[in-house]
Amino acid sequence: MRTAGRHFLQIPGPSTVPDRILRAIDMPTMDHRGPAFADVGRRALDGMKSIFKTEAHVMIYPSSGTGAWEAALVNALSPGDKVLMFETGHFASLWNALATRIGLNPEFIEGDWRSGADAERIEERLRADGAHEIKAVCVVHNETSTGSVTPVVEVRKAIDAAGHPSLLMVDTISSLASIDYRHDEWGVDVTVGGSQKGLMLPPGLAFNAVSGKAMAASKSAGLQRSYWSWEEMVGPNEKGYFPYTPATNMLYGLNEAVDMLHEEGLDNVFARHTRHGAAARSAVRAWGLEVLCNRQGHESGVLTAVKMPEGHSADGFRATTLRHFDLSLGNGLSKVADKVFRIGHLGDFNDLTLMATLSGVEMGLAKAGVPHRSGGAQTAMAYLLDTPPATLAAE
Amino acid sequence: MRTAGRHFLQIPGPSTVPDRILRAIDMPTMDHRGPAFADVGRRALDGMKSIFKTEAHVMIYPSSGTGAWEAALVNALSPGDKVLMFETGHFASLWNALATRIGLNPEFIEGDWRSGADAERIEERLRADGAHEIKAVCVVHNETSTGSVTPVVEVRKAIDAAGHPSLLMVDTISSLASIDYRHDEWGVDVTVGGSQKGLMLPPGLAFNAVSGKAMAASKSAGLQRSYWSWEEMVGPNEKGYFPYTPATNMLYGLNEAVDMLHEEGLDNVFARHTRHGAAARSAVRAWGLEVLCNRQGHESGVLTAVKMPEGHSADGFRATTLRHFDLSLGNGLSKVADKVFRIGHLGDFNDLTLMATLSGVEMGLAKAGVPHRSGGAQTAMAYLLDTPPATLAAE
Amino acid sequence: MRTAGRHFLQIPGPSTVPDRILRAIDMPTMDHRGPAFADVGRRALDGMKSIFKTEAHVMIYPSSGTGAWEAALVNALSPGDKVLMFETGHFASLWNALATRIGLNPEFIEGDWRSGADAERIEERLRADGAHEIKAVCVVHNETSTGSVTPVVEVRKAIDAAGHPSLLMVDTISSLASIDYRHDEWGVDVTVGGSQKGLMLPPGLAFNAVSGKAMAASKSAGLQRSYWSWEEMVGPNEKGYFPYTPATNMLYGLNEAVDMLHEEGLDNVFARHTRHGAAARSAVRAWGLEVLCNRQGHESGVLTAVKMPEGHSADGFRATTLRHFDLSLGNGLSKVADKVFRIGHLGDFNDLTLMATLSGVEMGLAKAGVPHRSGGAQTAMAYLLDTPPATLAAE
Amino acid sequence: MRTAGRHFLQIPGPSTVPDRILRAIDMPTMDHRGPAFADVGRRALDGMKSIFKTEAHVMIYPSSGTGAWEAALVNALSPGDKVLMFETGHFASLWNALATRIGLNPEFIEGDWRSGADAERIEERLRADGAHEIKAVCVVHNETSTGSVTPVVEVRKAIDAAGHPSLLMVDTISSLASIDYRHDEWGVDVTVGGSQKGLMLPPGLAFNAVSGKAMAASKSAGLQRSYWSWEEMVGPNEKGYFPYTPATNMLYGLNEAVDMLHEEGLDNVFARHTRHGAAARSAVRAWGLEVLCNRQGHESGVLTAVKMPEGHSADGFRATTLRHFDLSLGNGLSKVADKVFRIGHLGDFNDLTLMATLSGVEMGLAKAGVPHRSGGAQTAMAYLLDTPPATLAAE
Repeated sequence: MRTAGRHFLQIPGPSTVPDRILRAIDMPTMDHRGPAFADVGRRALDGMKSIFKTEAHVMIYPSSGTGAWEAALVNALSPGDKVLMFETGHFASLWNALATRIGLNPEFIEGDWRSGADAERIEERLRADGAHEIKAVCVVHNETSTGSVTPVVEVRKAIDAAGHPSLLMVDTISSLASIDYRHDEWGVDVTVGGSQKGLMLPPGLAFNAVSGKAMAASKSAGLQRSYWSWEEMVGPNEKGYFPYTPATNMLYGLNEAVDMLHEEGLDNVFARHTRHGAAARSAVRAWGLEVLCNRQGHESGVLTAVKMPEGHSADGFRATTLRHFDLSLGNGLSKVADKVFRIGHLGDFNDLTLMATLSGVEMGLAKAGVPHRSGGAQTAMAYLLDTPPATLAAE
Repeated sequence: MRTAGRHFLQIPGPSTVPDRILRAIDMPTMDHRGPAFADVGRRALDGMKSIFKTEAHVMIYPSSGTGAWEAALVNALSPGDKVLMFETGHFASLWNALATRIGLNPEFIEGDWRSGADAERIEERLRADGAHEIKAVCVVHNETSTGSVTPVVEVRKAIDAAGHPSLLMVDTISSLASIDYRHDEWGVDVTVGGSQKGLMLPPGLAFNAVSGKAMAASKSAGLQRSYWSWEEMVGPNEKGYFPYTPATNMLYGLNEAVDMLHEEGLDNVFARHTRHGAAARSAVRAWGLEVLCNRQGHESGVLTAVKMPEGHSADGFRATTLRHFDLSLGNGLSKVADKVFRIGHLGDFNDLTLMATLSGVEMGLAKAGVPHRSGGAQTAMAYLLDTPPATLAAE
Repeated sequence: MRTAGRHFLQIPGPSTVPDRILRAIDMPTMDHRGPAFADVGRRALDGMKSIFKTEAHVMIYPSSGTGAWEAALVNALSPGDKVLMFETGHFASLWNALATRIGLNPEFIEGDWRSGADAERIEERLRADGAHEIKAVCVVHNETSTGSVTPVVEVRKAIDAAGHPSLLMVDTISSLASIDYRHDEWGVDVTVGGSQKGLMLPPGLAFNAVSGKAMAASKSAGLQRSYWSWEEMVGPNEKGYFPYTPATNMLYGLNEAVDMLHEEGLDNVFARHTRHGAAARSAVRAWGLEVLCNRQGHESGVLTAVKMPEGHSADGFRATTLRHFDLSLGNGLSKVADKVFRIGHLGDFNDLTLMATLSGVEMGLAKAGVPHRSGGAQTAMAYLLDTPPATLAAE
Repeated sequence: MRTAGRHFLQIPGPSTVPDRILRAIDMPTMDHRGPAFADVGRRALDGMKSIFKTEAHVMIYPSSGTGAWEAALVNALSPGDKVLMFETGHFASLWNALATRIGLNPEFIEGDWRSGADAERIEERLRADGAHEIKAVCVVHNETSTGSVTPVVEVRKAIDAAGHPSLLMVDTISSLASIDYRHDEWGVDVTVGGSQKGLMLPPGLAFNAVSGKAMAASKSAGLQRSYWSWEEMVGPNEKGYFPYTPATNMLYGLNEAVDMLHEEGLDNVFARHTRHGAAARSAVRAWGLEVLCNRQGHESGVLTAVKMPEGHSADGFRATTLRHFDLSLGNGLSKVADKVFRIGHLGDFNDLTLMATLSGVEMGLAKAGVPHRSGGAQTAMAYLLDTPPATLAAE
């Protein structure tokens, strides 16, 4: 039987793709070696610089974000290199596993999945590395599995305070274009991004923003690479082209997405996510449930992970919201599987979509027999009313 | 500045067009006289019969619903003919004015805009018409300006009880495919429909379903007609063609829409609208506001018109919901201008979209300083939970 | 079995709709009474003025072109009025029949379907009408059934030379935005247009451009009208709105179409059609076939109607081109049914699409066993090479 | 200035994407971990098996074809492994360079770029490899830079005749779904494919079909891999899921493409390409130009590479066809840069599109002053007429 009405895809990515972007993708594929393509390619490359806030090179890969993780490591590092990673959650763990798989020697600072990376512990570890064996510090900006944000500025300061020459690599797959981020100003060497979250595109593109220092490191980096090679990209990119066939139609969409983000204004985009995150947490607390992220200042505006009351299945609850309210929520991953559900409030998102989502969660909790107090949605409404966006506050 | 997220178009039509339908329309226009078109045309004509629940002829016009009103009258009636209409609201009044404009002599039974047509008063008037001067009784099934439904079955019974030979004409522009309707079983002679409400299409198509009795009447009907002529349509329609260029791409969409309605099941579609209407009214009452329709059994599942508290501007309130929450609500029309706002809950619509809408209304009332009790959205949630759709009740 | 590749829709309209326009239509329907719509409506109304080349009012109807024919007559004329029409072909005959059907008294100057209207014969007839009984002269600019063009300027001169006060009405359904046309400069009173030809849209919109004189005439015009009423339109149009629900998504497409036409430049558009018409005729002559239009200067750049050799079925031939080459050609209508086929070369069209079309015709002639000389496509290529578009001639 | 009409993208891929596929892609992205996705994923995986004609596993990567080249090698081989490649043209050379870059030891049998791989020379080389140092033989099925086809069956026979245990890897990026191919029957171990040619999709997906033997080899293969790892794919694929975010919307398109190919019938698809290749070559010869592929039986149905007369620039000529006729042709690559142009006749393609293309080439030759005889397009028409597709031959 057909389900009426629009599906609510409130997982923490892929996010809902706006019509303008889907329609931009839905245009004839063009000759990626012809003269007209140069403009498409240049717009995409320049556009992504404006999103990463960098003057450095941005690589655009036809791949998922996982590929861009790999690209960051294989270009800048050599077999056996030590890299320092921080266990913020599932995705940090996957990146750590990937590093091992390709022949690196990652050291994983243990975490409890309830906050972003701890800059102090990173600094401490780097200070202990007098021999500078650690070649890269890798952190996840917004840990999609937990809804916790790593303060990248503090990590940068930690490295500097330790006087350590390590590269800094940051995964912004689920934060880019949703949470304030500044590749150059914050001194990041490699930033990893993906298309299907804040950029509001379908999955299929991934990015590396690469500092001069990282680019220099790649000259002597020994890991095997070809598809991901920065070096191969740079030349053709100069004129707006790519060394192999790019995902042409996705680039059309990317250019539309960047236009849309600038039409709204990046600062407005960031403020919007922050506000929706706060509203979502106010609802969770009103329900008497617990937000997974328990470190103040690390809470995410992209998603809110919610702990399920003991003895109740988060996945059972998610199946209920899907079946009864056509609402897709994110599942708990690995360590928190079935113990957590995640509410995505990112990308092309607004107040009423948040209210629809929170209403669906609240009704789902009731339908699934999960102990809670009603009124969470009502609380979020009050928050939204009390905290209007700056762009509307004047009225 | 770009507004993020999806616009909520909760006027009582045009309703939100589902992606499947927009994509079906977004295909190359074909030769409307070529052999492949016959299948498109036949599917559209047969499909609309299944929606009107008729074996009689359905006319499909490239026009708005206003055109189909005119078509109904000019095909079946002659200059100076008396027609009996009932003032259920703005749209009944417009149809009445149209009848006058084209040379008919309409008699308008006065109404207070708070209920559907009163079958008893119609019967009374017909009994008084011993000379059978009244040639047609015209009622609006769902009065889009007020959210009141005329019980067509009772009107039919009234005509029969009066032993009157009048034609029965029903405007279903905003009820078709949302509220139960049966052209043949209910003995309607001409049903008027449009594409942009329950059929979930953009505006641009309008319909007449025409009984044998109406078709016979048209043979001697003297009003001037050409574009709207049923007679011209019937021949080409037999093989799936049209006497003039049809709105080809809209027909693609229509065929998709009819498929979607049958996939869901018409009875499920009707029940869905009924349930959402009840939920919306529960919210309005919880806010302490008044639903315009005050006759039990006449309340609409398509829209809910809400009376604004004295001294407050409905249009000012609507401007607030649009500006702050990207929510379009329907305005009060003519007699109730600025005194009423209308919440559309029709077409491709579901529980969470209703919750988004009601949350937007509740926040808008607060933002605009309209006196109300909060908790309407919360009340609607309770209603939805207590009254699951039959298709899901089994769980 | 699926047929591979793109269908060639080379009937003289509907023409192929460009992707940009289909994608523009494929966007969410909006509130046609909300503030954002005003811009859409104003752009459409102003845009159409730039296409008709008029400062006067343009009406946009959700309807096919047939509706706009009716609109022109019912707004400006009274029952029994005499109108002078010219039998240029099937569509002039249909308009004539329509005039009769709605109660006018048309006089039809006989023609042989092989040229546009003859201004001299019109002048002669008007001079004989000393009593000024003729209220309107109606001509078809581009007769879609024959591929002949009426020189509107000459018709205007004829009316003036006869000192006759008649209105001048021109059907530009298949010429607008393909053949040079100037509503104001040429002193036309009502111009009738449609969406699905030179405007490159799907069918579903039709137009009237209305001079001040025609608007004045409408004040006292007695024919019954409502949907088509100019008077009802003018008020709402002033602010970009419409008296009844407009075909919103088609208006999105219309605005895109007008942009595209101006991006190319109207004069370039006209020159392109002229050049393709000449190339098509060169092919027809090389095949040893006869172009239906036999009056020099009246040949159309929109379509070329070709006479079938005696004893051969044009419709059989068209079935062959459709089955074997996925090419839709236009059929002969009424008087020339099965004796003529029509090649459309209008709208979003270019040299290679013409070559595909002519190649399909040439192969179809061979496949269907129609006597002809091969080499028509080759001849057209030579023509195209010898006559480059002005925009490229510089190279 | 806007160019009117449809662009003719007649490069040898990306090919023109049909509307049905673009519209299928243009749908909301869904939860790739939700229950509804399993059907999308399974259909894609099973569908690709039907295209590769294999019961073995097919990997679907979000990547360009270049990535799938890398995937084939890194999964099955170890650092320093010897692989035997054949220089059929530019793409074979790129694959060879890639092998070197990732640490393999490729041996490149020299070729003249005018035929497919020579099975005899491969057999000879394998016979000389008594120590079985060669771990894989890699050939390009359809060399996109030259329009020559390697007879894969003969290569298989050569390996068998030499009694050599080497793996057989075949690049079908530009042949898959255009030229007959049978992964299982032909005993291929790894087949590499891409989305943007015969599959009629935009670029962005790439494929490996992997035999049991290759899968077994991967267990001990030592090259570094993560994103491309077959092992990671197999588990999630079993239920229709992927180890990392798939390119969801591209999978919608892939499923539509596979349906379309089967609706036409793969054998009809292959015959269509063969026939168009022959027609294109007949045109080239009639122009007095030389087809680059000079080995009978190796000519491609996907593209035709044409040698430019001495002293004339192929790229200048291509610029002319683009500027004057909106026709994109493929350029000569590396060794044959500026000496060759390539006509793509693959994917969603038909007789009239071929005629448009050949007409554009013929006019371009004239416009660019390239010595040639006219009449090539005419010759191709004769070929098409004399050689109707089997599906239409009955008439």
